[in-house]
Amino acid sequence: MMALLSALTMEIAIPVCAVIGIAFSLVQWRCRLCYSDDEGQDTAQLRAARHKYAEIKNTISEGVRSFLLTEYRYAGVFVVAFAILIFLLLGSVERFTTQSRPCTSNHSKTCKPALVTAVFSTVSFLLGAFTSVLFGSLGTKIAMFANARNALEERNIAERTFRSCAFMGFLLAAIDLLVLYLAIILFKLYYGNDWEGLFEAITGYVLGGSFMALFKRVSGGIYAKAADACVHLVREIEQNCPQTERNPAVISNYVGDIVGEIAGMGPDLFGSYTESSCVALVLASISSFGIEHNFTAMCYPLLISSMGILVSLVATVWGEIKPASKTEKYIISTILMTVGIVVVSLIALPSSFTIYNIGLPKVVKNWQLSLCVGVGLWAGHISGFANKNYTNIYFSCLQDGAAHNFHSGLQAAPQNVNVALGSVSIPFFAAVSIFVSYRFAGTYGIAVAALGMLSPIATRLAIDASGPLGDNAEGIAMMASIGAPEDADNTTAAIGKEFAIESAALVSIALLGAFVNRPAMSSSVDVLTPKVIVGLIMGSWLPYCFSAMTMGSVGRAGFKMALEVREQLLRFGPEHIGVHEKPNYARCFEIATEASFRGTIGPCALVMLTPLIIGTAFSVEMLSGLLAGSVGSVVQIAISASKTDGAWIQAKEDIKAGALEYAKKHCRGEPTLLRIAESGKTIGDPRKDTSGPPLHILIQLMAVESLVLAPFFATHGGLLFKFL
Amino acid sequence: MMALLSALTMEIAIPVCAVIGIAFSLVQWRCRLCYSDDEGQDTAQLRAARHKYAEIKNTISEGVRSFLLTEYRYAGVFVVAFAILIFLLLGSVERFTTQSRPCTSNHSKTCKPALVTAVFSTVSFLLGAFTSVLFGSLGTKIAMFANARNALEERNIAERTFRSCAFMGFLLAAIDLLVLYLAIILFKLYYGNDWEGLFEAITGYVLGGSFMALFKRVSGGIYAKAADACVHLVREIEQNCPQTERNPAVISNYVGDIVGEIAGMGPDLFGSYTESSCVALVLASISSFGIEHNFTAMCYPLLISSMGILVSLVATVWGEIKPASKTEKYIISTILMTVGIVVVSLIALPSSFTIYNIGLPKVVKNWQLSLCVGVGLWAGHISGFANKNYTNIYFSCLQDGAAHNFHSGLQAAPQNVNVALGSVSIPFFAAVSIFVSYRFAGTYGIAVAALGMLSPIATRLAIDASGPLGDNAEGIAMMASIGAPEDADNTTAAIGKEFAIESAALVSIALLGAFVNRPAMSSSVDVLTPKVIVGLIMGSWLPYCFSAMTMGSVGRAGFKMALEVREQLLRFGPEHIGVHEKPNYARCFEIATEASFRGTIGPCALVMLTPLIIGTAFSVEMLSGLLAGSVGSVVQIAISASKTDGAWIQAKEDIKAGALEYAKKHCRGEPTLLRIAESGKTIGDPRKDTSGPPLHILIQLMAVESLVLAPFFATHGGLLFKFL
Repeated sequence: MMALLSALTMEIAIPVCAVIGIAFSLVQWRCRLCYSDDEGQDTAQLRAARHKYAEIKNTISEGVRSFLLTEYRYAGVFVVAFAILIFLLLGSVERFTTQSRPCTSNHSKTCKPALVTAVFSTVSFLLGAFTSVLFGSLGTKIAMFANARNALEERNIAERTFRSCAFMGFLLAAIDLLVLYLAIILFKLYYGNDWEGLFEAITGYVLGGSFMALFKRVSGGIYAKAADACVHLVREIEQNCPQTERNPAVISNYVGDIVGEIAGMGPDLFGSYTESSCVALVLASISSFGIEHNFTAMCYPLLISSMGILVSLVATVWGEIKPASKTEKYIISTILMTVGIVVVSLIALPSSFTIYNIGLPKVVKNWQLSLCVGVGLWAGHISGFANKNYTNIYFSCLQDGAAHNFHSGLQAAPQNVNVALGSVSIPFFAAVSIFVSYRFAGTYGIAVAALGMLSPIATRLAIDASGPLGDNAEGIAMMASIGAPEDADNTTAAIGKEFAIESAALVSIALLGAFVNRPAMSSSVDVLTPKVIVGLIMGSWLPYCFSAMTMGSVGRAGFKMALEVREQLLRFGPEHIGVHEKPNYARCFEIATEASFRGTIGPCALVMLTPLIIGTAFSVEMLSGLLAGSVGSVVQIAISASKTDGAWIQAKEDIKAGALEYAKKHCRGEPTLLRIAESGKTIGDPRKDTSGPPLHILIQLMAVESLVLAPFFATHGGLLFKFL
Repeated sequence: MMALLSALTMEIAIPVCAVIGIAFSLVQWRCRLCYSDDEGQDTAQLRAARHKYAEIKNTISEGVRSFLLTEYRYAGVFVVAFAILIFLLLGSVERFTTQSRPCTSNHSKTCKPALVTAVFSTVSFLLGAFTSVLFGSLGTKIAMFANARNALEERNIAERTFRSCAFMGFLLAAIDLLVLYLAIILFKLYYGNDWEGLFEAITGYVLGGSFMALFKRVSGGIYAKAADACVHLVREIEQNCPQTERNPAVISNYVGDIVGEIAGMGPDLFGSYTESSCVALVLASISSFGIEHNFTAMCYPLLISSMGILVSLVATVWGEIKPASKTEKYIISTILMTVGIVVVSLIALPSSFTIYNIGLPKVVKNWQLSLCVGVGLWAGHISGFANKNYTNIYFSCLQDGAAHNFHSGLQAAPQNVNVALGSVSIPFFAAVSIFVSYRFAGTYGIAVAALGMLSPIATRLAIDASGPLGDNAEGIAMMASIGAPEDADNTTAAIGKEFAIESAALVSIALLGAFVNRPAMSSSVDVLTPKVIVGLIMGSWLPYCFSAMTMGSVGRAGFKMALEVREQLLRFGPEHIGVHEKPNYARCFEIATEASFRGTIGPCALVMLTPLIIGTAFSVEMLSGLLAGSVGSVVQIAISASKTDGAWIQAKEDIKAGALEYAKKHCRGEPTLLRIAESGKTIGDPRKDTSGPPLHILIQLMAVESLVLAPFFATHGGLLFKFL
């Protein structure tokens, strides 16, 4: 039975939605300028401030530019090397022959030669990496521009940053959809009816995007926290150094905020988004959609994404007409999306169809699939809220008894029962959505649940990114007019991170499913076989090693920067630095950039090479175990990283507020508690902002890499056991 | 084909070895007195010191006694409640009928009724708990006694503590063997040829032992670190409070060392040791040994343990004749044990036999099984050394560049590349031994590998326990004569902990294998089924939650103690406390004890109830996933807990030594680094000593509990899915 929506309508609908998204994003960009301040107040003071803003902005731009240029150099080498590797490995599957072969799933049909798939995979890998770089640079540009303008105007900063971020969010969702769709259409011209090969090639696109996301997240995270640590360190050592733009450490810190938070966020969400679409497409290609050549049903994931763009648009406009809080915007978009999912499922899918789940056919009704997507959507929504609530409860507990709790606030804050309770919600909702969606539609169900979770991405990105961007703008504004920037509080960003973990867990399990679902793989991942359990233990270890490496890099980079800043401080003297002649910002940026990229190589190589080595030398079973183990472990580490360090920061604030008074009144001696809490924050910060955020990319990347290289592993893998 | 060793010889050999072990332990206890000091030096000063020693000893004894009494009360309630639960659950399997039933594995035979197995399981659960309590109390008594004497003599402390610990080690290994053997013989009188039921009942013994081990480790760990935190806290707040026995916090700290390190160690190793024997016995009972009723081959695990006692004895005597370092003693015992294993395997096992591994028969030769045991033995040996070396390399790196590294020593020390490298060795060797032993003899191979790892337990316990005991004695001696105890360095204990984790990983996987091997269970643990993956994610989360709860308890208990100590300090004044009248030690002990046990209830209930709830409400598949997930996660958390905090402590020492000089010379202001490192140690300590050590018991306990309750889960489990 065919779907209601014809293939032609679908083929028009997707690009139209993408174009609408792009158009709307441009509208947002223009609207950003609607709130212009009254130009009449052109006093001398304002003019001086403007001059100072412009100067600071230029310095920060210079830092960002030097970071991006170095990034292109390093990432370029990495990407090209890996592209060659992919080509060689995939090409070698059939010894670089150009002849068509019988399909692995259906031997009566002929499929395109492996060499062509190797070429297409490599091309789409490069395309994915390029798109990701594009979003990263664009995000940075917008952030810089928005920042400078916002800081200059000093009014309506929140609205303006939201606009800028909405611009980025819609652009990202729309361009991603468009590129993916165009790539499918173009590849289809060659592949024709060999949809298995087609989507195999498309997976390369995801790999490229995810790889760049990891690279950007890690390098930006190291830069940001090294700069932060440098500021703290210099402040500790040199008591009276200035905390304004006269101190190169402070400026580096602003650069770090931009390259760490903003530049990483776009590619990161882009990676997750593409992955969930692609894994659903790959799974669909080997199910009945692929076999029956039902192109409308095949493109169901893309239709869901298109609907997501429309829904986000409506939610944004709605929030425009009736000014809505962030929470209300979330709720509106979730409710609208639920309706959207039902509509898409009813018109795009046949009322009943067959999914091949690890070899076994499973009949799925279209309403069941819409339930899978809906479960993912609502799980993401609720767990975002549950976390917020738990965090608040915990924080208020701390505040209530700030004096009473002072010791448990120190020693217990990092890992407390309340935090643990709060952390349950993510595994819990992830578990529920995995369970329900698997029950209805196997691994395909899990893939579309992840897609559902990510579908209102434009709104989410707009809301999440506006937090740090606004803080940054306010900081610069304050630095020029008042002089001392405040520590900013990024709770929205933290919620975004947890949400990313949840969707990553779903995507990775779906990817693992797709990997195992491939023909010529053993069709189960049984923990009680020695290869799998060994892989599982190694997989649990990998994220720890990764965190350790990134943390080490932060320490080294921060130390190098601090040495340079201190030298400059001593040369000019803390009172005179930056007053008459500018401090040597460029040298600082250079050191920070070099150190971050040096520190990025190790962790990135670890993530990229481990699946390759395990699959080639050992076996696909061990690789499956590795992927499963790392999913379990990453979920926990990432949550604990984001939670515990949030708690440290809060503990510090609370101690400042309450316990310090208590300590002053009741204890002799200095306020020990604040000291301890401050150093706790210094330890906690890099965990939260450097080693935490890339963790979910780690599992997705390893899973998608395994999927891309699966044909190679199937033919040439497990070398060590073959020799033994 | 039968084995060379007749059943009768075997039945005599095991108890004889046990008795030899007990006799040798008594010899060690007497020998401890051989190094008595010259009594002629009975000066007035010595007499005064003796008087002071006796007083301190009595105070500490009082604290330990109050701890033990409270422990019996709490543990008693827990144990009785759980015994009733076990009886009810296992009895309900066949609705409390007293009629014999057809066996589940072989329907043509009749097995004993489930009600009887329920009774025997409950009895052996109580027996296990009792034996464990016995070892705990005995260990504490010996530690107290040895401490007081050693502190008094001031000479040959190392030799004497080694003797005392060897006494405990041999007694533990021998009594454990004897009790287990007698229980089997007695139960066999009733069970006759129903070996499956027999060993099902015996598993209860392990559950009792492990449960008490967990209870003691957690409560002791909380007490120890709460007291430690209290000392630090009071020192921070009241600058000039005394650090001698006049300060009740200091005395509580000594009590904490004894109840935390010594009282927990015995039951802990006892639990691991019994578990590895029992899981091998259970697996053997459902393999061809059980079916062919080859009792000699059945008792192979017990023979290995007997050989372990003899080997440890020889190694100890050898070390006696030619004074040997700790390392040499380890090596001697490992080499001798290798020979012992080969001998036992050749004479006790038929040259070829069949193992049923998850339903599939597998032919194993006796030399292959001896290889499994040997791999475990050597993996444990090598990874102990590898760790030591890595730790040393890391430490020397830190020392080399103490000044240069000062920031990375702070921020990167907790999770550094070197630490990560060092941590690889445990998963690596665990993986190798799992892989090899599984390859040769399935899950039975893993079980005997774990047994091999633990076989030289008497020597190990003697060496590992003598570290903290000696430190404790030296501390007391110094307190009486000099006045200020030093921070003690327990690296041997840390190696012991890592080794415990490795064996626990093996035991848990074997237990999981035994659980899945049971009839009426699904015979695989496939990660790609939704129940298993949900279990896996929950399993990864459980150890985090457990750690968080124990850490929270430490914080709360420490805070309560500090309040009390401060009140006493303020009442008497820091200069006069304990000079004329004694401080109120009892009140301090009471608070610490109550707080520790209150803090123990939550974590213990979590561990005991989770498998029960998952198995009853959800399904055995989810439970299997839970067990697998927690193994992966525990290995990492435990290693990171023991490693990172070792690194913190070292960082502090190094900063004291080197970087402080650097900081003084180059930086203005106070020595910030030392402050940060000290607070790092305060954070790191409870992770290392409270939440780390019980983690391996956690996985073993959950696995053994699942095994004991497996008949219940098989008949009444998965309620929620039955209703849905």
